[in-house]
Amino acid sequence: MSEFDLIELMRTRCALQRADVRLGIGDDAAVVVPPGGHELIVCTDTLVSGIHFPASTSAADIGWKSLAVNLSDLAAMGATPAWALLALTLPNADRDFVEAFCDGFAAMAAQHHVSLIGGDTTRGPLTITVTALGFVPTDKAVRRDGARIGDEVHVTGVLGDAAAGLQVMNGRPYAMDREAPSVAELRRSLLAKLNRPQPQIAAGLALRGVASACIDVSDGLLADLGHVAAASAAAIEIESRHVPTSAALATLYGTNDRIPLQLAGGDDYELAFTVAPSRSAALTADLARIGCGSTRIGRVVAGTGVRALDSDGNDIAPKYQGWEHFS
Amino acid sequence: MSEFDLIELMRTRCALQRADVRLGIGDDAAVVVPPGGHELIVCTDTLVSGIHFPASTSAADIGWKSLAVNLSDLAAMGATPAWALLALTLPNADRDFVEAFCDGFAAMAAQHHVSLIGGDTTRGPLTITVTALGFVPTDKAVRRDGARIGDEVHVTGVLGDAAAGLQVMNGRPYAMDREAPSVAELRRSLLAKLNRPQPQIAAGLALRGVASACIDVSDGLLADLGHVAAASAAAIEIESRHVPTSAALATLYGTNDRIPLQLAGGDDYELAFTVAPSRSAALTADLARIGCGSTRIGRVVAGTGVRALDSDGNDIAPKYQGWEHFS
Repeated sequence: MSEFDLIELMRTRCALQRADVRLGIGDDAAVVVPPGGHELIVCTDTLVSGIHFPASTSAADIGWKSLAVNLSDLAAMGATPAWALLALTLPNADRDFVEAFCDGFAAMAAQHHVSLIGGDTTRGPLTITVTALGFVPTDKAVRRDGARIGDEVHVTGVLGDAAAGLQVMNGRPYAMDREAPSVAELRRSLLAKLNRPQPQIAAGLALRGVASACIDVSDGLLADLGHVAAASAAAIEIESRHVPTSAALATLYGTNDRIPLQLAGGDDYELAFTVAPSRSAALTADLARIGCGSTRIGRVVAGTGVRALDSDGNDIAPKYQGWEHFS
Repeated sequence: MSEFDLIELMRTRCALQRADVRLGIGDDAAVVVPPGGHELIVCTDTLVSGIHFPASTSAADIGWKSLAVNLSDLAAMGATPAWALLALTLPNADRDFVEAFCDGFAAMAAQHHVSLIGGDTTRGPLTITVTALGFVPTDKAVRRDGARIGDEVHVTGVLGDAAAGLQVMNGRPYAMDREAPSVAELRRSLLAKLNRPQPQIAAGLALRGVASACIDVSDGLLADLGHVAAASAAAIEIESRHVPTSAALATLYGTNDRIPLQLAGGDDYELAFTVAPSRSAALTADLARIGCGSTRIGRVVAGTGVRALDSDGNDIAPKYQGWEHFS
């Protein structure tokens, strides 16, 4: 399979039609038409085999996730996704791998009407870099630096499932009740959260003009909220008992085992956001209307950094660090 | 050095100020303002250590080249560059390497007023993926598919120096007159073409609305013109005696040794373009006015594929293949 066969395969499977794509895969660069009255939102994220996903991850899951994590960054800005570029470095031109990869990528792309407009295929250790592009109306991007003292802190969905899924996938010892009747199904549910994350695009759109700050939970809740706190020159307090938990995680893990995964595990791709108390009820209702659960987990206070408090108000944050590539 | 130190280092060294950057490095995604009346041009290219550059290449040269090869793709579309994203995968967080890399990247960026607006740093085998963004006025992009039978084929600059530079760098036997008085200087000139390519942005702008098709010479002249021929449903004939040659290459290599490098070596980052005979003289004069030499090397004819003819009109093309990652 030649490099040009690979590119043709990707074009055929992933280049969804959009009227704003003048020229997609197959020239020196893509030509697209940004809408008037909007700003362009751009991000790029790399997944390295064995670091961002277990080497045993299926090709289709890798394809899905490589786009999903980028769309999650767009979601955190309140953006509508439009286009993506895929730089795929492969040890060899394995047609089965590339076909399955493209199927996973295309399934994620189709959900959000994203067209693959360009990319590059190179030989080397398995590494995937996706660049995602989208729009927000001028001045409506939801940034990290807008949290104000007194704001509430909320998060969409549930936290910790992906980190637990990674434990399942790695076969590490983990605290689960192995006798529960539906263990296999619960494990599958955790694995799905790890391998098929859902970027919260609709939630991001609902946050626009309402939330004061937003970030996606990729490195771990505390680490990510640390960026919001630092950018906003404030501190954040989380009440760990309010951190939302899936039925699967609650069934399979005891509280002491799941809390670290929920505060620091990462790979959740939920949105953590801050909102003024006066706007919080309406926003929660808006999110519920689009089928997105959200939970108040803390508040913005004076100071610096992030604290996670247990039920007695004791600070448990120092125990948990987020993902850091070069620590 | 933490991941966040790395990001801060890149931001400090590479985030050149532009009024159209609303939000650069440091949020989930960048926010930029595309100009009205223009289309957005986007490309991405990956460099893998040991494949796209010798592992002994200096960090500053890698930084320069990783941006330059992407700006070359924008040049081939006739685009004005604006922004870039950098996904840098590193075996370890070596401050000296990253500082030198950023210096090379920033030097290239400054030449073309490109701002680094985002990226990602990950741990893994040294791999660099840059995404470059620029603009053309609506409908003015120079594509690969516009070559017409009867058009002339031209190329900017000279060809083959980078491929010869790679031979120099690899210490492979090569046909040079080792007794020439200025051999060291000539070798340095070849190495500079390999490690510090100059994207032909100004030439690309001059081609807009005049050239019928354009491509940058990255994989090798014949391979790249093959894409133009295929996209344009025509054939291209090159007269190899007209392929432009630097003084360094002409001094150090005999004709038989340099022609393969010039036709198939690649890494030139010159622009190969087609133009109607009626517009060719004015375009050549325009290019000369901006200090860009160009040479007529062939013509577009009926048929398919690319032929390279020697002085006797014999086809020498089959001997030379361009770069192919998975062959």
